[in-house]
Amino acid sequence: MMPNLASQLPTIAMTMGDPSGVGPEVVAAVWNDLRLHGCCRPVVMGDPEIFRRACELRGVKGETPTVGSLAEGFAMTGPNVAPCLPCGEPVGKLTPGEVTSAGGEAAYQAVVLACKAALAEECDAIVTAPLSKAALHVAGRHYPGHTELLAELCGVDDFAMMLYLPPETANRNPFGLGVVHVTLHTSLRSVFELLSIEGIAAKCALADCALRNFGCPAPRIGVAALNPHAGEGGLFGDEEARLIAPAVAQARAAGINAVGPLPVDTLMVRATQGEFDAVVAMYHDQGHIALKLLAMHSAVNVTLGLPIVRTSVAHGTAADLAWKGVAETSGMIAATQAAARLAAEMKRTSVR
Amino acid sequence: MMPNLASQLPTIAMTMGDPSGVGPEVVAAVWNDLRLHGCCRPVVMGDPEIFRRACELRGVKGETPTVGSLAEGFAMTGPNVAPCLPCGEPVGKLTPGEVTSAGGEAAYQAVVLACKAALAEECDAIVTAPLSKAALHVAGRHYPGHTELLAELCGVDDFAMMLYLPPETANRNPFGLGVVHVTLHTSLRSVFELLSIEGIAAKCALADCALRNFGCPAPRIGVAALNPHAGEGGLFGDEEARLIAPAVAQARAAGINAVGPLPVDTLMVRATQGEFDAVVAMYHDQGHIALKLLAMHSAVNVTLGLPIVRTSVAHGTAADLAWKGVAETSGMIAATQAAARLAAEMKRTSVR
Repeated sequence: MMPNLASQLPTIAMTMGDPSGVGPEVVAAVWNDLRLHGCCRPVVMGDPEIFRRACELRGVKGETPTVGSLAEGFAMTGPNVAPCLPCGEPVGKLTPGEVTSAGGEAAYQAVVLACKAALAEECDAIVTAPLSKAALHVAGRHYPGHTELLAELCGVDDFAMMLYLPPETANRNPFGLGVVHVTLHTSLRSVFELLSIEGIAAKCALADCALRNFGCPAPRIGVAALNPHAGEGGLFGDEEARLIAPAVAQARAAGINAVGPLPVDTLMVRATQGEFDAVVAMYHDQGHIALKLLAMHSAVNVTLGLPIVRTSVAHGTAADLAWKGVAETSGMIAATQAAARLAAEMKRTSVR
Repeated sequence: MMPNLASQLPTIAMTMGDPSGVGPEVVAAVWNDLRLHGCCRPVVMGDPEIFRRACELRGVKGETPTVGSLAEGFAMTGPNVAPCLPCGEPVGKLTPGEVTSAGGEAAYQAVVLACKAALAEECDAIVTAPLSKAALHVAGRHYPGHTELLAELCGVDDFAMMLYLPPETANRNPFGLGVVHVTLHTSLRSVFELLSIEGIAAKCALADCALRNFGCPAPRIGVAALNPHAGEGGLFGDEEARLIAPAVAQARAAGINAVGPLPVDTLMVRATQGEFDAVVAMYHDQGHIALKLLAMHSAVNVTLGLPIVRTSVAHGTAADLAWKGVAETSGMIAATQAAARLAAEMKRTSVR
């Protein structure tokens, strides 16, 4: 008998995100894309009725059975079978783009259940579609984003959000290009008190580990300065000398090939030219301006420091595009491929 | 008799910048480029001996006469004649890439004389090659950069640095794409106290005026938020509601088509897709990360708010590349073309 090769592919739970956003249709639209089934065995988590409507909107062929467990879904999933595991209450009617408590709660429940399933090893990775921070808030779920919610569910303090360009997009970086954020969903004014030598060094370590998991044998990490011109020798701020340089020294002492602090505008250019495998950015926009410009649609959001593999698209709920049947799907394919790659690497190293 | 069309081209004084950096060879290397002489009548300002060495390094053909005035230079300049007007003391020996007082002083003197010449209408515009802020400092000239020095020489308070991608580079923006900085050479921490409603509104007006001078009949100005996600409705900072939104309202009341505050990561993508003609950035790296990624070598630095036309390359002295004969020249061509365009527009509107 032929061995069933597909059964060796990583299992991935895909959450639909906020039902009023582009999440459901983006998850639906990738189902007939063979790249999805070539890299993993996917099962959708969320309201099956919403998922069916999204499949119809995007003309997805095949069945959309409601399943009672991820295991049941993974056993039947394929290009013509899109199993969906219900999470929480049915959403009922929705208005595209609207911020609602029901939408926020549905997105929240799917992420919580997917994360718990991954922790219980019921799946190899989770891939999440965008949720609305405002809807989370209305639902009384006070998290600034997926990253912080997942960190809490996993009980980790040392985590980070990495934006990742796969090698196909970052074509001078053979293992892709990652940008790890030291601070994330916080005001720019609060960044100063949130930066510390230990925190920055820890993010260098997470960046190093993440790129190794993407196959890079010896990651080169460029660490961004906080101030313009890297502080111009102390003329424009002292965080470079006081915090970032000591953090780089600490990371190097731990065997990490970190370099910096470097002026971030030219660092980003050097990184895209292949000089670095990852960049450590001090705040949200420092990393996001560069990666969104480089690949608005195919950048992947990877949460580092979790005991589970989690990736996501890098875009938001796109209220203005939701349920119009036009939302771009390349980000969801890239996010799933990245999750599958990380899950396979995790399996390989844990078997050793 | 045929009219001498060349004599109608704008006259441009080109300063060589720090003699130890890439400035001299970049100015020299463009001389045999017909695009230079197709847009202006150029004369070099700086140490003629240094300029001759740079011409030799880059294989520039023709004569390099030392002249006694800009007028004398403009009368003879051409693809085979590169006139140079001495500024200050001869530099003598130099070590490539070295920060010296003599280098800083030479760069300073050339900028001061060029600026005075432009104010006296002895030339139509000035284009500057990069100087070293550290060398300026060693020479006792305490300016954080060209922009601030020129503003002081011209006696203006309301000025700004704009990075500009010409239409050839920003191909979805028919009049090019400008990014105007509200704050510039200052620590990130000091940005908060430097931002004001009036200041931001004034930069919107400068951006509007600059794009009109580049031929855009109705500039669309995207104003960046300071905080990630434009503050996420006040969750991540209040500067959007307190300062930026009122500044945008004030600019709009003055007839400027400003929109914002918008999250800067997606704003930059939207601008490059042609949705905006200019972006107003709150701090140095917000604008610089985007424009250096989009066009490391052909971005142009334009000083707004001066009574004279001044542009520059957007790169620095590049100590590691200096005097190796390899420095990229597309930025100097772009800077000169932009200066010529602005000077021609200034002449046209003042003749009306």
